[in-house]
Amino acid sequence: MPRSPLRSSTRRALPRPSRPFADARNWAQFHSPKNLTMALTGETGELSEIFQWMTEEQSITAAQTPETSQAVRDELADVLMYLVRLADVLGVDLDEAVQDKLKRNGEKYPVDKARNTSKKYDQL
Amino acid sequence: MPRSPLRSSTRRALPRPSRPFADARNWAQFHSPKNLTMALTGETGELSEIFQWMTEEQSITAAQTPETSQAVRDELADVLMYLVRLADVLGVDLDEAVQDKLKRNGEKYPVDKARNTSKKYDQL
Amino acid sequence: MPRSPLRSSTRRALPRPSRPFADARNWAQFHSPKNLTMALTGETGELSEIFQWMTEEQSITAAQTPETSQAVRDELADVLMYLVRLADVLGVDLDEAVQDKLKRNGEKYPVDKARNTSKKYDQL
Amino acid sequence: MPRSPLRSSTRRALPRPSRPFADARNWAQFHSPKNLTMALTGETGELSEIFQWMTEEQSITAAQTPETSQAVRDELADVLMYLVRLADVLGVDLDEAVQDKLKRNGEKYPVDKARNTSKKYDQL
Repeated sequence: MPRSPLRSSTRRALPRPSRPFADARNWAQFHSPKNLTMALTGETGELSEIFQWMTEEQSITAAQTPETSQAVRDELADVLMYLVRLADVLGVDLDEAVQDKLKRNGEKYPVDKARNTSKKYDQL
Repeated sequence: MPRSPLRSSTRRALPRPSRPFADARNWAQFHSPKNLTMALTGETGELSEIFQWMTEEQSITAAQTPETSQAVRDELADVLMYLVRLADVLGVDLDEAVQDKLKRNGEKYPVDKARNTSKKYDQL
Repeated sequence: MPRSPLRSSTRRALPRPSRPFADARNWAQFHSPKNLTMALTGETGELSEIFQWMTEEQSITAAQTPETSQAVRDELADVLMYLVRLADVLGVDLDEAVQDKLKRNGEKYPVDKARNTSKKYDQL
Repeated sequence: MPRSPLRSSTRRALPRPSRPFADARNWAQFHSPKNLTMALTGETGELSEIFQWMTEEQSITAAQTPETSQAVRDELADVLMYLVRLADVLGVDLDEAVQDKLKRNGEKYPVDKARNTSKKYDQL
């Protein structure tokens, strides 16, 4: 893992989109990590509802299918915005967190053992 | 919304971290959008478990509290990695999706009406 | 919908299992509806993790497959216990709520229109 | 745990409400455990959205508050119906599963150690 998985310029960029939006509306009062985690759950649930009756095959083209294309984009954006806001209020650097986790995942899932299997690391 | 909410350099950077990791393990076969959405749900659930018995007050310092600091970082990273991977297999540009959604949110939640309230846009 | 969908004897029976368990441990202090909803989310996430890499076909036999049989039962039980506890602290009669919802679902999804389709009611 | 936590008559009663509803619409084709778990996730997410900006205090009266009373009942019912349907297609007896889990929870959370704490069993 020689370089940052997210380009270094994203380090400070990621937390930005939701903060001025929330500040302008004085929403910090509602944005505790606990509450934001529930909001993130709500958006993940909406994403789930898009795919729930699709086959895996159908899900692959969901962002190109007129009926679901906009909804897919919207829910992905909502999840990302709440996630970035959550990291922001918690004071967590998402880029560092991803780098660190990817490194440990690499040790838990060595290529030769994890290849072609969806097993959890403790069952490899 | 004159500038991109995520710096322009993140546009192409965001989808990258999980792809080589998955490719090396030949995991594309498991990574349908439907499956990745369930994996995202699982990670969101783990994030939820960290905060479930905390007060809002306690949740604010969860990333600085020794008992929960690492778990918070790990779950945030897991959610982000599955989200980025999901956008990647769906062919969605997350930066564009966020820009577009923020713009429409700004119209749904005008500053003067949305200030100091957590009401949904259809009840403002 | 002439009769109760859950037998009438379950009306009072459903809320019971978790209450004495929680009372003996003085857990009411943690069991606000907000917190219990997060706990329910956590358990739903664990259920999701069991099925995330399975095909639909594989998921059908998950409760008969030795590797997943116990986990499936445990997570279903956990979801039900938190749900019943949540209804209990909220003062909601789950049987009445189901009866009422089923009745309205029957109107939203008339048999002739909803047959053989997974479309949402507003698209039928 | 000498008696069933759910009255014995609920054993067979629980799986019933959703089955005729689904059968009349020929929905078994969509109701794989994998899909139903995603549907359950969606409903849990909707429940989460009701409580996300409430304080714990406010959440306690949510089923008595005119603005949220119906939504709370509806989402609880939706979660229960998908859960019962899921157990039905998996062939799991929910009552047995709860009995079994409660018994093991009693061992993992002994009253004297678990009293007045929300710690997880492995930290007691």
